[in-house]
Amino acid sequence: MKGGSAAAFLFDLDGTLVDSVYQHVIAWQEAFSKDRLFVEAWKIHRRIGMSGELFLNAVMRDMGHKITKERAKHFEHLHKNAYGRLLSGIKSFPGSKELLRHLTRSKIPWAIGTSGGNEATRRATKSLGLSKSATVITGDMVENTKPCPDLFMTASQKLGVEIQDSIIVGDSVWDILAARRAGALAVGLLSGGISPEDLANAGAFRIYRNPAHLLQHLDEIGVSVLS
Amino acid sequence: MKGGSAAAFLFDLDGTLVDSVYQHVIAWQEAFSKDRLFVEAWKIHRRIGMSGELFLNAVMRDMGHKITKERAKHFEHLHKNAYGRLLSGIKSFPGSKELLRHLTRSKIPWAIGTSGGNEATRRATKSLGLSKSATVITGDMVENTKPCPDLFMTASQKLGVEIQDSIIVGDSVWDILAARRAGALAVGLLSGGISPEDLANAGAFRIYRNPAHLLQHLDEIGVSVLS
Repeated sequence: MKGGSAAAFLFDLDGTLVDSVYQHVIAWQEAFSKDRLFVEAWKIHRRIGMSGELFLNAVMRDMGHKITKERAKHFEHLHKNAYGRLLSGIKSFPGSKELLRHLTRSKIPWAIGTSGGNEATRRATKSLGLSKSATVITGDMVENTKPCPDLFMTASQKLGVEIQDSIIVGDSVWDILAARRAGALAVGLLSGGISPEDLANAGAFRIYRNPAHLLQHLDEIGVSVLS
Repeated sequence: MKGGSAAAFLFDLDGTLVDSVYQHVIAWQEAFSKDRLFVEAWKIHRRIGMSGELFLNAVMRDMGHKITKERAKHFEHLHKNAYGRLLSGIKSFPGSKELLRHLTRSKIPWAIGTSGGNEATRRATKSLGLSKSATVITGDMVENTKPCPDLFMTASQKLGVEIQDSIIVGDSVWDILAARRAGALAVGLLSGGISPEDLANAGAFRIYRNPAHLLQHLDEIGVSVLS
């Protein structure tokens, strides 16, 4: 990395910058229950952050079902509606805004890459008070979402930086796997409720509690904290 | 243990027999937000299963606040209301009913010990179809709830069995700690979303995915599965 600092920071959104993972879990469970399917919440939780299609495939396989593209769309629609009703209470984590502000001030480019769609992302990022110039890549903008690296690759291209010089920050193993496939370093956050062991096993090179904790330890990942 | 089998099984309820942990997380978050406090969902999740008073003390300490008995009561009331609204969709885990039925048929006594109150417990256990003679000890019936062992001690006394010969089944580290304080063996379940590492570190001697998975492996904890 140039001058000892990361070229850029690429952030996941749900569970990383905003506290929305548990609402996603409840929304998926509601979506399944509309079709009289019961999926255990903990099994949903462990798969949040994947693309909707891969997520549905994994959940259905676990129950011994197969899923068609059409049925996946149907469930994604039900989830979108259920999540929309839960979205109003969603807040950014302690330190999210301060971390992004610190990077901007330090002239370190950053972007957000999320498997979520445009509309949900627009609403979920409200609590972050992003400027209009912020780079946000959503699931609607790329062919394949996490654990494929497309979201983060697109984000780094848009920032004009090398992905190999970037640090990807996420709360799910799918973020960490996407980072490894992209050749970037991954930092894990515990704020999505995934265990440090799962994040470390997936390949996170450092693990912090939440954005505030990461901001306090930026020097550990080679970012100057002097102003 | 007598004849190689456990004298009794003592179960936690939320996250162990019924899939309600994520709803409890959302309900606590709602309760705090009524007082304009934001508590991160993952921090709530890791503390579900504790007594309300200890839970509130831990959460508030984490935010640098102190809490009075009066304020704890206030939050417990807010949580009760919020959880009540989410309770209608709560289901038992795959295998919960079958596991309890198997124990009954095998003449192995069992009971439920939950930190929750009478009313929430009555509603949450509906999906289990319990008979009126089932032994259910709630937080309203004892002085101290988990991680104190009182709930499980009272349950074993009611069943007329030695707690040391019992197996305590729970999804949270607070169940496992209560089991150890009571001198009972603890079995952990992943169905509450707590990691196997956390459960093992607390002292769970076996860990299964959910009640169905435990039922399939009862022989591993010394219970005959022959009918």
